[in-house]
Amino acid sequence: MSYVLGHNQYGKAEVHVVRVFRDSREGRHDLVDYNVSVSLTGDFDDAHITGDQAKVLTTDACKNTVNAFAKEAGDAVRAPESFALALANHFMDDIPQVATVKINVEAFPWQRIGEEDHGFRRINDYIRTVTVRRSGDDKPTVVSGLKDYVVLKTTDSEFHGFYQEKYTTLQPTDDRVMATSVTAQWAHTTDENVDWNASFANVVDTMTTSFGAAYSYALQHTIFEMGQKVLDAEPGVAEIRMSAPNKHHFWIDLSPFGVENNNEVFHADDRPYGLIEATVQRSADVDMTGAYEPGQAWS
Amino acid sequence: MSYVLGHNQYGKAEVHVVRVFRDSREGRHDLVDYNVSVSLTGDFDDAHITGDQAKVLTTDACKNTVNAFAKEAGDAVRAPESFALALANHFMDDIPQVATVKINVEAFPWQRIGEEDHGFRRINDYIRTVTVRRSGDDKPTVVSGLKDYVVLKTTDSEFHGFYQEKYTTLQPTDDRVMATSVTAQWAHTTDENVDWNASFANVVDTMTTSFGAAYSYALQHTIFEMGQKVLDAEPGVAEIRMSAPNKHHFWIDLSPFGVENNNEVFHADDRPYGLIEATVQRSADVDMTGAYEPGQAWS
Amino acid sequence: MSYVLGHNQYGKAEVHVVRVFRDSREGRHDLVDYNVSVSLTGDFDDAHITGDQAKVLTTDACKNTVNAFAKEAGDAVRAPESFALALANHFMDDIPQVATVKINVEAFPWQRIGEEDHGFRRINDYIRTVTVRRSGDDKPTVVSGLKDYVVLKTTDSEFHGFYQEKYTTLQPTDDRVMATSVTAQWAHTTDENVDWNASFANVVDTMTTSFGAAYSYALQHTIFEMGQKVLDAEPGVAEIRMSAPNKHHFWIDLSPFGVENNNEVFHADDRPYGLIEATVQRSADVDMTGAYEPGQAWS
Amino acid sequence: MSYVLGHNQYGKAEVHVVRVFRDSREGRHDLVDYNVSVSLTGDFDDAHITGDQAKVLTTDACKNTVNAFAKEAGDAVRAPESFALALANHFMDDIPQVATVKINVEAFPWQRIGEEDHGFRRINDYIRTVTVRRSGDDKPTVVSGLKDYVVLKTTDSEFHGFYQEKYTTLQPTDDRVMATSVTAQWAHTTDENVDWNASFANVVDTMTTSFGAAYSYALQHTIFEMGQKVLDAEPGVAEIRMSAPNKHHFWIDLSPFGVENNNEVFHADDRPYGLIEATVQRSADVDMTGAYEPGQAWS
Repeated sequence: MSYVLGHNQYGKAEVHVVRVFRDSREGRHDLVDYNVSVSLTGDFDDAHITGDQAKVLTTDACKNTVNAFAKEAGDAVRAPESFALALANHFMDDIPQVATVKINVEAFPWQRIGEEDHGFRRINDYIRTVTVRRSGDDKPTVVSGLKDYVVLKTTDSEFHGFYQEKYTTLQPTDDRVMATSVTAQWAHTTDENVDWNASFANVVDTMTTSFGAAYSYALQHTIFEMGQKVLDAEPGVAEIRMSAPNKHHFWIDLSPFGVENNNEVFHADDRPYGLIEATVQRSADVDMTGAYEPGQAWS
Repeated sequence: MSYVLGHNQYGKAEVHVVRVFRDSREGRHDLVDYNVSVSLTGDFDDAHITGDQAKVLTTDACKNTVNAFAKEAGDAVRAPESFALALANHFMDDIPQVATVKINVEAFPWQRIGEEDHGFRRINDYIRTVTVRRSGDDKPTVVSGLKDYVVLKTTDSEFHGFYQEKYTTLQPTDDRVMATSVTAQWAHTTDENVDWNASFANVVDTMTTSFGAAYSYALQHTIFEMGQKVLDAEPGVAEIRMSAPNKHHFWIDLSPFGVENNNEVFHADDRPYGLIEATVQRSADVDMTGAYEPGQAWS
Repeated sequence: MSYVLGHNQYGKAEVHVVRVFRDSREGRHDLVDYNVSVSLTGDFDDAHITGDQAKVLTTDACKNTVNAFAKEAGDAVRAPESFALALANHFMDDIPQVATVKINVEAFPWQRIGEEDHGFRRINDYIRTVTVRRSGDDKPTVVSGLKDYVVLKTTDSEFHGFYQEKYTTLQPTDDRVMATSVTAQWAHTTDENVDWNASFANVVDTMTTSFGAAYSYALQHTIFEMGQKVLDAEPGVAEIRMSAPNKHHFWIDLSPFGVENNNEVFHADDRPYGLIEATVQRSADVDMTGAYEPGQAWS
Repeated sequence: MSYVLGHNQYGKAEVHVVRVFRDSREGRHDLVDYNVSVSLTGDFDDAHITGDQAKVLTTDACKNTVNAFAKEAGDAVRAPESFALALANHFMDDIPQVATVKINVEAFPWQRIGEEDHGFRRINDYIRTVTVRRSGDDKPTVVSGLKDYVVLKTTDSEFHGFYQEKYTTLQPTDDRVMATSVTAQWAHTTDENVDWNASFANVVDTMTTSFGAAYSYALQHTIFEMGQKVLDAEPGVAEIRMSAPNKHHFWIDLSPFGVENNNEVFHADDRPYGLIEATVQRSADVDMTGAYEPGQAWS
């Protein structure tokens, strides 16, 4: 008995390529550090059904392409968005049997050591992410993002007035520690003429300062505010999706030991955790669903 | 300036609950070990926009519910599918402001030590997964699965005849090691009267034996065959999605050291890796898309 | 100003080599899967102080040696202990500037799929470990072990009568769940004429069954019993070191929801955790300290 | 048959406590974020042999002590070294059956968001570590450290002139990328009157700038230089141990695609990796071995 092949896709995942720009000025180097994944759909039924690979671009060739483009794509390599666009357009334009292409990039930040021309240190505050998708002759969609960006407020956070039912035992509070590890993705309205690195820096800065300044009635309340500030700051961003695990900091009762704990000592718990996720859009009329890979930013 | 709240969801993630069944027979215990995540959508706009939490079921209450249901749900707790169904139906039926609910369970297998009544060891060959989704008064959808199940063939695997272009340098082979870490999810046509544990065991056994017996012309070819065998073996499964990273084992050239390597010594590489993903369906007419959380099994 | 070079060592870590034995019988294959690390000390001061590498065996050559020996060492490759011995003896005997050598192997278990000649599945219940050390013309020491082996008792575990002081608030119990993830290492009295695979299997089996059968007054009490049983079962083992994190399973109070929890529902917590570590020796007169790398099994 | 109990130790591992200092000035908060492990030796034989726990300080009490001291220890909490000293002295002085105590702290850095009084972001460039050990009435030893600090040079790194033997095939190079993830630990000559936070900052800064400025003939050569600079910069540091995995960046041959790679495009490989470890001491006459837990910084 035989069945039907449904949705399928394939590609090379996690090509970890580092590009050094040796020509910057007077011997000063720059570098970018990318982990690139390529995913293709198209006319690949035979590979599954009969085992005939005649139309299959090998995943090894995908890897080679990423590595070669790290040089060939020139200045586009300096931002993960433009690098991903160059790759997406190549696979779409040059490989006839490809119907859609998705390029994911994780970009690991580095910082120059002082004024050294050739010395760098890794910055791990977050990982920058990019997803570029293109389908046939459509314009590519560009989604920028970050993940694992941890922020915390020691106060200015309340949580009360919530729904009551049989299993609700939580005590309301008007002063708690609130912390989260932000994963966010924002869709751009265009793939052209954007200074991607400046735009990314502006979004991160806006998210950070708006979190720092927020007075919070719930994590939902705060991420909605952060999202609005990002749309204010970057007119080219159509919408932003945020996934924010509530990294719980539980007040510890120290009274058995004769110690007063005036919201000073907290247990940072691992799991379970509240997981809060929301989208903030410029307008409900703009449908950016196609810009995301299914499930992106939602877990 | 203010914006529109788009899709949003929230809940408690990773409630790690272990249930011991102490009543089995003559003092013999059984246990299940679940990591449960609850995700809700519904009328939660105010929580984001004004900070009013009146309709928000706390994530703490979600946790309490999972823990209480580990006892209250009785025999349903013995399979992750029926446990997830009990939870999904509770949140949908008993909390008016909920519009959709998704329950994810990771189930960690344990094996009795010999004939001991109370001693167990963890089996880590794979993690069993379940996703149950329900929207309003619709019937729930049940998706069973597993992840991180690693299988390997030492031969009976070829790869050649693939597409040639500028970046293709891979040499064809008619004998290679093929290994993968299978993540699979399969959607059931019903949520009732299924022996979930027996069905799961049958799917795993079928996947394993069909992988073992397959002669492979590509990983695509083999996972399509595995999927067909699963649909043969389990009539209640509508479709199966598989995500199969090609865990590359590269032949090592030992000739510089005067050693012949007749496909005996391989370097097990970490990344990059080919990532092969496909769906096998009973019929293209059956659309099970709603059964999966967006992006599930695809990365 | 200049200073003194103290202890130093170097080598290649995590050479992940898979060896297929194609000659077993009538086309049936076997395989081993090793992650090998080599660490050398010796006359390497110049490499640090002047930058002169003339005596440095490259870490790349260490890697090549591991890979070549996966074929050259013949049947010794079939057990990680004998493979590590072959490597240790080579580096010590053939590279004059080496003073001591340590070989660490992580061996990942695989199981044949049914009666398939070429199909295997990974078994992740534990990782098998080996450390072989040799110094100059001394006999090598062999330490076998395992890590991440998770076992659990649903009852037959008490904990009470403990020391009381200011910070002690724990309630005593005569019935609790006890679980741990065992890391163990045991030193052999000889490096010769041991059936390493049989010995390893016997130790694992003994640890498992003795844990299953134990009635426990503390995790300390149980690991001491397990250690004694291992020494009983394997006369060639001089001593065993165990590191046992107490994977806490906390009873959950379900009474606020009107649910009785008769030691049936537990929260499996991640951290903090009790960490219990002990050595069981045949006799205090035998000093096996030299058999371990400093700190091995203790954290 | 019964055997001898050898070395044993126990305690609570990974107590994750966050302390907020609310009194700093005019409403401005500070915070520290510590993951604390306590390990004790002493008169605990009965706990193993007979199961009698009368002398066992529960690991739960260890946890309570850490949490309470996060308030009780006052300003000592502001640096992980002084916090660990307070804990070590308590366990040694106040629990009679304790013979030795070891306190390990992982300190996670946070940075104030702009000039916000209550908003912070996690800095993940490295994790700061502390180990304090005390035995009976001896003075405590203090070892500060960091781990996972990733640095890279795009040039000014050579590697050639190395030893040649049968398995050596590596090509010498006079220009390569050199990167490492530094784990370092340095022992202090005293436990008193040190500004621990200033000292730590000075060591990190010195390691960073000396790596950035170094011209390297091998990773050994560079870490020895870094170690000397640290001893220059901090007179109170007796010795420093460094463990430096060589994070290999392999030049990629792009000539098959007609692309010249002038040391611009590299594959960042995961494993295997060279692992280079060395100690730099003020003088061979100072033996700081007792300051480290066995095996610390060596793997």
